[in-house]
Amino acid sequence: MAIQRKKVSVIGAGFTGATTALMIAQKELADVVLVDVPDMEDPTKGKALDMLEASPVQGFDSHIIGTSNYEDTKDSDLVIITAGIARKPGMSRDDLVSTNAKIMKTVTKDIVKYSPDCLIVVLTNPVDAMTYAVFKESGFPKNRVIGQSGVLDTARFRTFVAQELNLSVKDITGFVLGGHGDDMVPLIRYSYAGGIPLEKLLSQDRIEAIIERTRKGGGEIVGLLGNGSAYYAPAASLTQMTEAILKDQRRILPSIAYLEGEYGYEGIYLGVPTILGGNGIEEVIELDLTDDEKAALDKSADSVKNVLKVLS
Amino acid sequence: MAIQRKKVSVIGAGFTGATTALMIAQKELADVVLVDVPDMEDPTKGKALDMLEASPVQGFDSHIIGTSNYEDTKDSDLVIITAGIARKPGMSRDDLVSTNAKIMKTVTKDIVKYSPDCLIVVLTNPVDAMTYAVFKESGFPKNRVIGQSGVLDTARFRTFVAQELNLSVKDITGFVLGGHGDDMVPLIRYSYAGGIPLEKLLSQDRIEAIIERTRKGGGEIVGLLGNGSAYYAPAASLTQMTEAILKDQRRILPSIAYLEGEYGYEGIYLGVPTILGGNGIEEVIELDLTDDEKAALDKSADSVKNVLKVLS
Amino acid sequence: MAIQRKKVSVIGAGFTGATTALMIAQKELADVVLVDVPDMEDPTKGKALDMLEASPVQGFDSHIIGTSNYEDTKDSDLVIITAGIARKPGMSRDDLVSTNAKIMKTVTKDIVKYSPDCLIVVLTNPVDAMTYAVFKESGFPKNRVIGQSGVLDTARFRTFVAQELNLSVKDITGFVLGGHGDDMVPLIRYSYAGGIPLEKLLSQDRIEAIIERTRKGGGEIVGLLGNGSAYYAPAASLTQMTEAILKDQRRILPSIAYLEGEYGYEGIYLGVPTILGGNGIEEVIELDLTDDEKAALDKSADSVKNVLKVLS
Amino acid sequence: MAIQRKKVSVIGAGFTGATTALMIAQKELADVVLVDVPDMEDPTKGKALDMLEASPVQGFDSHIIGTSNYEDTKDSDLVIITAGIARKPGMSRDDLVSTNAKIMKTVTKDIVKYSPDCLIVVLTNPVDAMTYAVFKESGFPKNRVIGQSGVLDTARFRTFVAQELNLSVKDITGFVLGGHGDDMVPLIRYSYAGGIPLEKLLSQDRIEAIIERTRKGGGEIVGLLGNGSAYYAPAASLTQMTEAILKDQRRILPSIAYLEGEYGYEGIYLGVPTILGGNGIEEVIELDLTDDEKAALDKSADSVKNVLKVLS
Repeated sequence: MAIQRKKVSVIGAGFTGATTALMIAQKELADVVLVDVPDMEDPTKGKALDMLEASPVQGFDSHIIGTSNYEDTKDSDLVIITAGIARKPGMSRDDLVSTNAKIMKTVTKDIVKYSPDCLIVVLTNPVDAMTYAVFKESGFPKNRVIGQSGVLDTARFRTFVAQELNLSVKDITGFVLGGHGDDMVPLIRYSYAGGIPLEKLLSQDRIEAIIERTRKGGGEIVGLLGNGSAYYAPAASLTQMTEAILKDQRRILPSIAYLEGEYGYEGIYLGVPTILGGNGIEEVIELDLTDDEKAALDKSADSVKNVLKVLS
Repeated sequence: MAIQRKKVSVIGAGFTGATTALMIAQKELADVVLVDVPDMEDPTKGKALDMLEASPVQGFDSHIIGTSNYEDTKDSDLVIITAGIARKPGMSRDDLVSTNAKIMKTVTKDIVKYSPDCLIVVLTNPVDAMTYAVFKESGFPKNRVIGQSGVLDTARFRTFVAQELNLSVKDITGFVLGGHGDDMVPLIRYSYAGGIPLEKLLSQDRIEAIIERTRKGGGEIVGLLGNGSAYYAPAASLTQMTEAILKDQRRILPSIAYLEGEYGYEGIYLGVPTILGGNGIEEVIELDLTDDEKAALDKSADSVKNVLKVLS
Repeated sequence: MAIQRKKVSVIGAGFTGATTALMIAQKELADVVLVDVPDMEDPTKGKALDMLEASPVQGFDSHIIGTSNYEDTKDSDLVIITAGIARKPGMSRDDLVSTNAKIMKTVTKDIVKYSPDCLIVVLTNPVDAMTYAVFKESGFPKNRVIGQSGVLDTARFRTFVAQELNLSVKDITGFVLGGHGDDMVPLIRYSYAGGIPLEKLLSQDRIEAIIERTRKGGGEIVGLLGNGSAYYAPAASLTQMTEAILKDQRRILPSIAYLEGEYGYEGIYLGVPTILGGNGIEEVIELDLTDDEKAALDKSADSVKNVLKVLS
Repeated sequence: MAIQRKKVSVIGAGFTGATTALMIAQKELADVVLVDVPDMEDPTKGKALDMLEASPVQGFDSHIIGTSNYEDTKDSDLVIITAGIARKPGMSRDDLVSTNAKIMKTVTKDIVKYSPDCLIVVLTNPVDAMTYAVFKESGFPKNRVIGQSGVLDTARFRTFVAQELNLSVKDITGFVLGGHGDDMVPLIRYSYAGGIPLEKLLSQDRIEAIIERTRKGGGEIVGLLGNGSAYYAPAASLTQMTEAILKDQRRILPSIAYLEGEYGYEGIYLGVPTILGGNGIEEVIELDLTDDEKAALDKSADSVKNVLKVLS
């Protein structure tokens, strides 16, 4: 009954998956298995080995391996899904949804086969629907299947506010509900610098501009990179959720959670404030919303439901 | 006379340059300016912004900007050069050397113009010759122009030994002299696990195999990735040298240093054990070598001199 | 013109001073000089040496020395004053004030003599008055003389709230103005769990109880220890202010700052929200207060003024 | 089957025990239960609460409680024993041994009762004999009962060498066998700076002086403090062993281990190089010794056996 390291598998060894593996290892949160399809096995092994070779100088003792064999993910405590395709020019949104949903089904089957007791965190877009697809396929209880979007959205929001006010990012907080990016419902009244409501420190115009920039935050990076999309901040966001769960920190973080009546929604995955701990989603925190906020959240939920229709 | 953050500029915003920027920021060692050519300005800005957006969740307060304008590097404490081309199929080594040497000249001019008091660490290959080129162009004293190769070579060596012995990477050390990769001169008698000489823990065969794998370590990653070369471990190595310098830690690390008589060489840059601190190379440590070691080092030095001929 | 480590001197080598030295060194923020009176020179050296002997296993490269000679503090970037006596049974408050004020004068003379450009952070009680005394004696501009109380008060408040709600301390924030302990003016409307106002998560009764416990937080520890007073949380608080300054983080933290009109006060040191960075207090943040809050702050300010009368 | 935090109990809430609790919590290695006798319950609670109040500013999410009730230690993964008396003037060594042995028996009974599967690390002096006493009383397999002395002895040695050579402590290693302090058997041939044998960097005289200072290292601190003994470096040493075990790092660290034939000794606890991991002592590493080294180790073993006689 020796003490054992935790184990995290990251499905999808693209830039986001690989960077997530690195960040988890840097914090010695767990050993990491980086998984991609057989065609990509060699590059996956290459990235994992390159990271492992960074470990003596970065000073971490986490093992990292690359593989295309799900057997290597056996008994993972947590599995992160970053696999999936990005929307290509000319591809309809529905095509994207059904393609990625198929991928979710396939990888979930393999995940569940080897780690029937694990927690799953999903990043693949459209994330609300993909988390739902993983939930259904896994047959896991709802607390163990979680989507990421709000940590990233607030990270971007906090960055822009910190720049605007020339303050430490450590003291800026943001608060979002609903979907990712465009569908995000920001609660500015719950967003602060050093505990001071942002509305007292920034004009309404500047706040609006920052919200708008946050909504388009993913697109801004895509536009700049020219080829590919953001991966550093998404990976950092996944890592923070992973840390909260593996260390049972009971942190209040926005998650895409399965709702059964909370906020008036039934049977969908939507971004809400949650307590993340050793059970995954320990609790969904319900807040009173203003009429405007509720209307915006309804719109966000409708958007999620529309995507789900494609899946059924 | 306020207290100010340190500033590091990273020239070359490819994977290695970008990952180095991230790792420096994660440790809050300095604000980072990531620089690439005007054609790559947008992707460079994109990577920098994506990293900055990771800062609230990773908890670091280093600013990171992307630019193609050297004015932004003004008053850097340290500049890291990762710019340069990789050898393409059909390209002669001499072509590689002269192309990268031209790049070194160009970037060094700009570096020196805006940061006449900085330290420079060079990664571009062939690194011994490129460090020499930067040294000549900069007109800096030798302690302020340093090349990286040994930290990376020993990192790989340590990784392979840790795997072989199933031990923590924290307790494995390696020791190399001479050039990078193939030209590396390993001193196994100065390589240990928990202070115990490796020769007592591993057979001569296994040691030879690990040395050989280390020599080809860069190529192993290139082969696996299929497209591109290693960047995680090289970035970690640059970050460790950066930390030793910016925190004036006086660490004993292998550096590519300008030799004026040490080890019997005059006027070349070669990998030797050094003390790295606030002055850059504080000291070159001279060791007695066996005849075999000296012969291997001579061969390594010859290889460096041959490359230098291309430059003159 | 080499890169040099920062230097912090800690005046007073009691438990708080010593623990502060340890925490600063653990983070490699600076080299530390621990100073006490000649009679205590040996124990001071003993504590410093014991800490230094922890450095190889804790992995920090900060030097720590113990001394009674202020020459050793020469060219400190920051000096922390923890020296002073605690109130003994039978001692009047005025006696405490005048004794500690004398100590402030003496140590400030020595500090200024050897580090005319340093920043000073004061912990000695009664801290508002002692910070004032140091300010006057030093002749320093107001931004360079700062008192600690609010970071500690909010740390205690955050701890109690985290326990009550069974949540991560990372997501709980508090907000205080005014004096230390009993004179503290908490702004509950600016105190949150995960950005959610505490008033939505805790009953008014529980909040009142936690505030009351925070006010008496120092006394609670004194009562439990039986002999001596708190030092871990005070040291952590000093370390956080030190980090914000030495890394120029521009954090929003409560400080005891010299007011010249802010909040309607003139010529006193009082606890207010500030931006801490490389210049020390970069800015005092003024907030609109409710009538109740303003009345409580007036009372706190009166209490400070009364103590100051003893000094004149 | 939620993911749970690890749990460490520290028996003895003196300076060493308390500092160990702090350092374990700072690294978020585990929740910590600090235990002392009923008479000291309040101070123990006071120290634990003071540390916990440091957690929001130090940024750790480990719970720390103080108690005199062993029920609170239930299901600890690891228990650290620092309890025991120090030798008082006029007290014979045998009296010290039998008093502390009685304490070991009492606390071990309670530890085993509530945590039958835990690992135990012992610090109480004379540590070889006390570890033996705990081993016997616990009935645990030998890998789960471990004594600390070599990590501390080498920490001191490394500190003195780093000072002497003006180098980073990160690059200095030491190697000891045998008992603690006076009985320590240093293997200088396995001690390095940056991998370079110390014998090449320091004169034999200086090495001898440093060894002698290390032997008397505990006494040097006692002499300086005047009242009490070292606790920072001992706590750091316990923390490093704890980290190696709880993270299953498989580090090579010197431990006091139960020998059954290794190095020619049978049935005693003695300081030897070990691999520390999730099973506690994963392996005792046997080295070839020179005749001089073997003679010194025999002397050290005799000294341990003499103490053990007092116990039987």
